Parts: sequence; C-alpha cells; structure tokens
Amino acid sequence: MINKGLLLIISGPAGVGKGTIVNYLVEGESNYFKSVSATSRKPRYMEREGEDYYFVTRAEFMRRVKRGEMLEYTEYNGNYYGTPLPPMKAHFEAGENVVLEIETDGAFQVKSKMPDAVLIFICPPSYEQLEARLRGRNTETEEAIIRRLSTARHELSLMPKYDYIIVNEDGKSDLSAQYVREIVRAEQLSSKRGIPHIILPE
Amino acid sequence: MINKGLLLIISGPAGVGKGTIVNYLVEGESNYFKSVSATSRKPRYMEREGEDYYFVTRAEFMRRVKRGEMLEYTEYNGNYYGTPLPPMKAHFEAGENVVLEIETDGAFQVKSKMPDAVLIFICPPSYEQLEARLRGRNTETEEAIIRRLSTARHELSLMPKYDYIIVNEDGKSDLSAQYVREIVRAEQLSSKRGIPHIILPE
Repeated sequence: MINKGLLLIISGPAGVGKGTIVNYLVEGESNYFKSVSATSRKPRYMEREGEDYYFVTRAEFMRRVKRGEMLEYTEYNGNYYGTPLPPMKAHFEAGENVVLEIETDGAFQVKSKMPDAVLIFICPPSYEQLEARLRGRNTETEEAIIRRLSTARHELSLMPKYDYIIVNEDGKSDLSAQYVREIVRAEQLSSKRGIPHIILPE
Repeated sequence: MINKGLLLIISGPAGVGKGTIVNYLVEGESNYFKSVSATSRKPRYMEREGEDYYFVTRAEFMRRVKRGEMLEYTEYNGNYYGTPLPPMKAHFEAGENVVLEIETDGAFQVKSKMPDAVLIFICPPSYEQLEARLRGRNTETEEAIIRRLSTARHELSLMPKYDYIIVNEDGKSDLSAQYVREIVRAEQLSSKRGIPHIILPE
C-alpha cells in the first residue's frame, strides 16, 4: 500500500447530501481534509476566513491563477471561485486524503490536471426524492428550485464520467461516507498506484 | 450499485496465507463462496468430494473441458486440475461473490475469459518472512522449500499484472480479508460496472 494521500473529488446535484457525507468524512480524528475554496466575493454574515472560504480581492485571485496556484476556477455572478493548491500539499505529504466538494465542470478541470484524482458522484435514489429534498429545505423560491433541478438533469447525465457512483439513500449519509472510505482503501491497494517493493536475495 | 456477484481471483506465493484469508471471507453468514477445483487425481485420505475437490476420471475431466465447463485447467504431475464453471453460476445470480484461489497462470487464463474478474495478489511483507513461514510449517523437505521459493520469485514478478495487491502482515489475515471486502465494495460502486438508472420526468 502506498502511504500517500488521495485527492477525492465529490460532485452531485444540490440537495443530494454531499455536504453531510463530507462532514462525516472529516469529523473526529480523521485522515480526511476538506479543501476550502478561494473567492473574490465579499464575506457574508458569519462566514469565516479559511473555514468557509479564503477571501481575496479580484486582483489577488487572478495573480494566484497566473502563478498556477489554482487547481481550477470559474466566474459566477461576477465573482471568482477556485480551488487553491498550496494548502493541499502538506496534507497529501502527511498521507491525508484531500476532499474537494465541487461541481462537474470543476471536477473535470481538476481531473485533467491531476489524473490520479478519484472522481465520486453522489446520486439521489430517484429524481422525485431529489426534488422532495430540495423543496423540503423551504429556503428557496420556486424559480430557484426549478433552476437547480434543471442543473441536476445535466449533472446526472455526466455520471458515467465519474470513477465511482454512490447512491445516497435517505438518512444514510454515514453509510455513504463509509463507502467513500472503502473506495479510498481499494484505490490505495490498486496496483496502478504502485507495487510493493520486495527485495529478493541474490 | 450493481447487485451482481463478482469473481475474485486470489493468488500469491505458497506460505503467504491465502487460504486463511479466503477462510475469513467465506466463514459465517458470508456472501462469499469459495470455488472448489475439479481434478482427475485420486482422493487422498480424508479428502471429501465437493469440499476439497470434485473428483472425476481423466476422460470425464476432458469431456467437461470440451463442453466449455472449465474456466481454466492445467496438467500437473500427470493429473488434471481445473476450475468448473457450472457451480459458480447460481452463486453469481444470487449476488454472491465467488472466490478462486489459484496460481498465476490459471489467474490470467480466467481473466482472459472473464475480463470482469478482479485479480488480487497476496504479497508477503518481505522475502525473508515468506521463507520463514515456509520453514515454520516443518512439513516440507529442503528441496521442496527451495522449489517453492523459486516459484515465489516468479510469482512476485507478476504482481503488476494484478488489479490489487495486499501485503499480508504476520497475524493480520483478518485485516487482509477486510481489505478484500473493501475492494469488492469499491468495484461494485465503480462506474465501469454500471450506472444507476435515474428516471427523469418528461
């Protein structure tokens, strides 16, 4: 087994429960580290630097892009969002797995730069259950829900491009997190990641 | 996740502890089934039909080969040994995983016929530990030990052709069996084995 941390990219439609699964992975004495995004937008109420986001100016964001410090980035609603590479490095070297919760376009950007990354798609048990979960949040307008469901259709069509697919059953996010750990173990035992070196006598 | 059993092929040098790992997998209320080989050699003392081997005549063995009922076979010391396909089928259909403990040549024969098979190599922590385990058995002549070590060198050189490699640490066969279960879970979640079918509304 190779004692190097893996880069896990976790995607899935809004409302599927990605955040809860990632929280299960990183809580406690875990060897999982959740990557924090950088953004050029202003902090909202209660958002904490380095926990919710790294907050930087637009100019500083683009300087980091040019220095190659962003694994991927995108512009959305006039603000930049991206995945900073430097904070990950120490965690990889300590053998920790870095978890990136990211949408599909960003996932494929990262995979093209880091082909060893493991792409995991979190899938709802059914479209109806996804819709029910989104409506159950009671925090969004009908228009926003319709937009999210339209995005979800697109994302579900990209499932085959992921390495692994986990169906996140209702109330079973801890089980889905366990599946992620099992995937990580298997990847670490995979011969494509390295062969144990057995020294043979002359 | 696809509810179809997997074919697991487990190889590794004599003395590495394959048998103990397979016993951990199949014992209790397990969904693992150990494949039993067929042979044309005569039963030895205490060997039981259908448990240690399926005992058949040479003529019957070759009839089964010609009918395509042997996944692989080989001749050794004037006797045929092979892996019968029919007993596996019911187990696969019941969603059970079939475990084949088999040497490297047979492993590659099976993989070429059933490309979905998962090849797992059990590796000793070191060559010295393998030698110590073989000598510790106290059941074999020096000549036999030297022959087994020579075969082991050849087998270790074939490790990279396996999908997964598990280093079986001393006294940790239960952990190695757990690794096998984690590999099976990951394979079942792998997108290459199938994509969950989500029905979208019109």
